[in-house]
Amino acid sequence: MSETRFDVVGIGNAIVDVLAHANDQFINENNLIKGTMSLVDEETAQSVYGKMGPGIECSGGSAANTIAALASLGSKGAFIGKVRDDQLGEVFRHDITALGITFETEAARNGASTARCMIHVTPDAQRTMQTFLGACVDLGPDDIDEEIITAAAVTYLEGYLWDPDHAKQAFRKAAKAAEQAGRQVALSLSDPFCVDRHRDDFLDLVKNHVNVVFANEEEVMSLYQVENFDEALQLVRADCDIAALTRSEKGSVIVRGDEVHIVDAEPADPVVDTTGAGDAYAAGFLHGLTTGKPLDVCARLGGIAAAEVISHVGARPDASLKELAEKKLL
Amino acid sequence: MSETRFDVVGIGNAIVDVLAHANDQFINENNLIKGTMSLVDEETAQSVYGKMGPGIECSGGSAANTIAALASLGSKGAFIGKVRDDQLGEVFRHDITALGITFETEAARNGASTARCMIHVTPDAQRTMQTFLGACVDLGPDDIDEEIITAAAVTYLEGYLWDPDHAKQAFRKAAKAAEQAGRQVALSLSDPFCVDRHRDDFLDLVKNHVNVVFANEEEVMSLYQVENFDEALQLVRADCDIAALTRSEKGSVIVRGDEVHIVDAEPADPVVDTTGAGDAYAAGFLHGLTTGKPLDVCARLGGIAAAEVISHVGARPDASLKELAEKKLL
Repeated sequence: MSETRFDVVGIGNAIVDVLAHANDQFINENNLIKGTMSLVDEETAQSVYGKMGPGIECSGGSAANTIAALASLGSKGAFIGKVRDDQLGEVFRHDITALGITFETEAARNGASTARCMIHVTPDAQRTMQTFLGACVDLGPDDIDEEIITAAAVTYLEGYLWDPDHAKQAFRKAAKAAEQAGRQVALSLSDPFCVDRHRDDFLDLVKNHVNVVFANEEEVMSLYQVENFDEALQLVRADCDIAALTRSEKGSVIVRGDEVHIVDAEPADPVVDTTGAGDAYAAGFLHGLTTGKPLDVCARLGGIAAAEVISHVGARPDASLKELAEKKLL
Repeated sequence: MSETRFDVVGIGNAIVDVLAHANDQFINENNLIKGTMSLVDEETAQSVYGKMGPGIECSGGSAANTIAALASLGSKGAFIGKVRDDQLGEVFRHDITALGITFETEAARNGASTARCMIHVTPDAQRTMQTFLGACVDLGPDDIDEEIITAAAVTYLEGYLWDPDHAKQAFRKAAKAAEQAGRQVALSLSDPFCVDRHRDDFLDLVKNHVNVVFANEEEVMSLYQVENFDEALQLVRADCDIAALTRSEKGSVIVRGDEVHIVDAEPADPVVDTTGAGDAYAAGFLHGLTTGKPLDVCARLGGIAAAEVISHVGARPDASLKELAEKKLL
């Protein structure tokens, strides 16, 4: 296999987050389901924004958060995703390139504005998200640079990318290029409702095209339409090379064939905002995997990254994950 | 005197902050003076932004921060300032109106984009700011709604407003309207270099038009071009009705004629980011003043508000200052 220039290339929706505190009443009054992501059109986005309290803006997007956390761990990353040539698009581009991440996808020059995810953070540190996909719907196969894909040890795809229709083809093209180059393909199932929207496709991906799947309990149970975690565990281990299943404060479970690891969560005190916990976990895990660590250490790295991200507002690490991991794994 | 609809109307530069961590080397290499604000043109702003690490965006602006903190204390506020009709302008408008603050200044439809302040937060929690004034230079006398000024107990002006040339006239018009209506005028000196740029005007304002002046040690010493705080204290008390002088961890000193209070700082642990400390102090103080509290209590309220704001990243309160003040002043 030829040498790799990147540890991981992430492909996902390029999104700027708008985070604000909200109470449970807000979640109920707006018919939201706590802890999940729903898609909204621009009009609804405007109306929801008008009801939100004062917020902070920061770059987000699931796969982009993962690549950002990988950079904080010392991994070399690239990102593919679509912004517009507007102020928020510039913010997104600045933040990801400032981390040393290669991001060469051209901004859209017309059409919808850069995607925004309105994140309502409730006092229990849970986050409920409403995403206006905006320019993300313009990501297509032409945006997939096969040279970057084949130059990366792992191509990491977020399930959310299945929502914009055109992006699906980009997703498939990238997965195919990675497979052909003998690289690994990793997939995050993203959200139980996202799984629900695309179950058949996701099952096909997990069975036939993906080497590593990331899912939390709800997502993997939704994938197999089963009522308990253990049942889903037995099904996914038969379908996929490696499954990394996260269970919030119960830690994570990793399976690869007969190998099974049950790894406790890292302590996080206080838990302030769980936005990006899964993204950070995937980063820690992939950092371990691409540096040749055993699976239980990969899981611990995932937990360490997640614990950092949930200890403050915002989905990307605030401290150096590299230093944190070195300290914790001593 | 007729009834007031607002406790305080703030007039200032309408700015979106871009905050990022920086080290001392960054400050030195860019020839910045730690703890101060410098003005940059759009080209420099772009170049500096390119060198900054990943950031978060949130609404800022000195007087706007003060009005935001006043809202958090339960005061009724209004704000006058100029954004453009762009994405960051919308963010600014959303955040301030979401707090229940009246903000009716029309956005500019052309010209420079919404102002941005790039804030470099060093590990010692100090902030060093570079401001691109953008649309703020379009604030003019026509934007001063005299009905709002006369309907407010206090008109609060930030010294920074003296930088955009046209805004100066807006500033004077507002101060005059407030005086004529028998309202109070408060002024923050903003920054030692800002004082340096406009010393004669500021001296005239302090002597002849302002009832309450807010300044930190460096600013009041710069105003009178003296080398020590006590000297400046003697000079300012002769010039101004009330002077509220802040001294960081040494607390604050309040003078009104023969009345002098020396009030300790509130404990803040950890100190994360001092951005907005002075703005929050002014809010606490003005909240006390407009609710008829004695000056020492006004100073304590200032300290409580400042301590909250420096305990996290960002210049506006994250917690309810009203609840905090009630708890602390018990």
